Amino acid sequence: MIVDNQQMRPIWFDQDKKIVRIIDQRMLPHRLVLADLNTVDDVIHAIKGMLVRGAPLIGATGAFGVYTALARDRECSYEHLILECSRIKAARPTAVNLAWGVDRVLKACLGSDRSEGRGAENRPIKGGDRLETALKEALAIAEEEAENCRQIGLHGLSIIQDISRQKEGEPVNILTHCNAGWLACIEYGTATAPMYAAFDRDIDIHVWVDETRPLNQGSRLTAWELGKHGIKHTIITDNAGGHLMQHKMVDLVIVGSDRTTRSGDVANKIGTYLKALGAKDNDIPFYVALPSSTIDWKIDDGIKQIPIEERDPREIQYIQGLDRSGNIVEVLVPPATSPAANHAFDVTPARLVTGLITERGICGANRQHILALFPEKEG
Amino acid sequence: MIVDNQQMRPIWFDQDKKIVRIIDQRMLPHRLVLADLNTVDDVIHAIKGMLVRGAPLIGATGAFGVYTALARDRECSYEHLILECSRIKAARPTAVNLAWGVDRVLKACLGSDRSEGRGAENRPIKGGDRLETALKEALAIAEEEAENCRQIGLHGLSIIQDISRQKEGEPVNILTHCNAGWLACIEYGTATAPMYAAFDRDIDIHVWVDETRPLNQGSRLTAWELGKHGIKHTIITDNAGGHLMQHKMVDLVIVGSDRTTRSGDVANKIGTYLKALGAKDNDIPFYVALPSSTIDWKIDDGIKQIPIEERDPREIQYIQGLDRSGNIVEVLVPPATSPAANHAFDVTPARLVTGLITERGICGANRQHILALFPEKEG
Repeated sequence: MIVDNQQMRPIWFDQDKKIVRIIDQRMLPHRLVLADLNTVDDVIHAIKGMLVRGAPLIGATGAFGVYTALARDRECSYEHLILECSRIKAARPTAVNLAWGVDRVLKACLGSDRSEGRGAENRPIKGGDRLETALKEALAIAEEEAENCRQIGLHGLSIIQDISRQKEGEPVNILTHCNAGWLACIEYGTATAPMYAAFDRDIDIHVWVDETRPLNQGSRLTAWELGKHGIKHTIITDNAGGHLMQHKMVDLVIVGSDRTTRSGDVANKIGTYLKALGAKDNDIPFYVALPSSTIDWKIDDGIKQIPIEERDPREIQYIQGLDRSGNIVEVLVPPATSPAANHAFDVTPARLVTGLITERGICGANRQHILALFPEKEG
Repeated sequence: MIVDNQQMRPIWFDQDKKIVRIIDQRMLPHRLVLADLNTVDDVIHAIKGMLVRGAPLIGATGAFGVYTALARDRECSYEHLILECSRIKAARPTAVNLAWGVDRVLKACLGSDRSEGRGAENRPIKGGDRLETALKEALAIAEEEAENCRQIGLHGLSIIQDISRQKEGEPVNILTHCNAGWLACIEYGTATAPMYAAFDRDIDIHVWVDETRPLNQGSRLTAWELGKHGIKHTIITDNAGGHLMQHKMVDLVIVGSDRTTRSGDVANKIGTYLKALGAKDNDIPFYVALPSSTIDWKIDDGIKQIPIEERDPREIQYIQGLDRSGNIVEVLVPPATSPAANHAFDVTPARLVTGLITERGICGANRQHILALFPEKEG
């Protein structure tokens, strides 16, 4: 995407320096800081520490992580590579893309379909070839995710166009939670892709941006993205959506997903479920935009089967921002002695989801409709 | 209430200095700062600027405000006093207690039932007598609110006792939003009164404290209050309640109210409505604790008829806390150029409310049940 006249992605491979580079998103919106991923530990730190976040980007970062492991040790053993991959996959538990991205590159390196292969019966590719293969596969994943997001944008656009027509060109008010923007993906974003597509076609839209506590990905990242692109938006507290929906100030909700069950349950940033309840109670369409890489084809019951990451309570207790002197600092809000609990995601049951916007089109949040779009996953 | 072995109220009259004093709640939990209310402008500043907040406390502060007007100008004309009272009543629009408290003292001063009297046919009390009357009435309001909260605690206690019995003594997990504690009242609080009553009777309880953005009254004030009293509690983001309810980690929700319609709709801190939806979806009892002074006997439809205050967007953009050097500072979280909207309250429709806990007992959130407790309001 274009930021201040410069082409930007949240992760890319620097061909000159042969290094994987990322935007360190912790410093946004106040500083645009870049970081290098030289080692597997760098990759794990970037994922765990949320220098990169968002399901598709975590998947791509995991994919580049396999390259990083091989770049440091070209002749590393099959067993060691598997171990390094396991370490990367364990960095965050909720998004299914991480394992998906890692396993796909690993598979390519092994030159076989058996990424989880227990024996050495599949002779892995070796040395420089293997490194080249890993890079190629990681780059392919990044490009595919970018293209998937572009497709999500085109499919989602039709929903916004319909509402715009019904409102006779009055602004379409879209509410979103967290950041499922290009910073969470490679280009366009998932939830934001239809917004960019609509804006670029001169449809009048306005976005309500949930600030998204505790890490404020909405007010820090989504607001920054939309502002850089010139899209009208207003930041609100996570508490406000219900009131706005009650008063017909929201026409449409679009959020992303960190993991989606094959039955259409959606794990996404904590608070998504409450917004879905608000949308249902006020008859407002609630869409989830996702590349199929976030679908977990093995599970049905999101509430029972998706592990919900618990993060450091410090993320709630301390808030980061710019002080009067222009320094990025943290301040302690509650009493230092009060404990806090930090569940990072929640699960929105499929019954509250109007539809899923995927790279192949829009479908109902149920097994039958999802499989109609992805018939190769049947059985 | 007892804070660090000292008897404390959020507002009181200093008999020696003849001054109304308050806790400046903006500095909590990091500093316990007191402030004097010498003039009507001080009173308005304290209410508007949220040095004091919470419906019952706003009502009591308004009541003391009438005393303040007279203390500065003992011989002030009837018309001038009415004007000063109007200025106080306009300081915040949502809580009905403010007008209620101001009007009650004004009425007492006028020595008649016609606080809104248009002529001078009711001879007002004059000078020192009038001042004495205003103070007496304001003090009476404060005592009555304290006693009302005590009664709310005793009635609400029965709900907690029942759950504790059902859980065979396992901790009762209560979720609350914002601060409807003694800091918002005079003693005990409204939503917290049943918690204090249960704790003081050795019932095992644990409170989930919504941080309550944007001003963090939950993490700053409720956590401080509960911590000082020794009640187990955990701070969560406003986003987290739905997830906790889904996973049976909440047994009961109790919140306060800033204005309640005679039909049982509840205006309370923004975000309350979303929690009520979460409780409904998960079959968890959702109670609202309120003194009858927050009931607006004139209106039925909370969503259409209760004015929702919009406050300065700065309250969302800047967050206050303690920096590393121990200074209370503000930090800017979103991009400086992104606008924000700050609706301070929302309305929870009566259909989502399990019951109202009032000073006279618990009743259903509907006109018939409310009037059964307050029959003098019939007609």
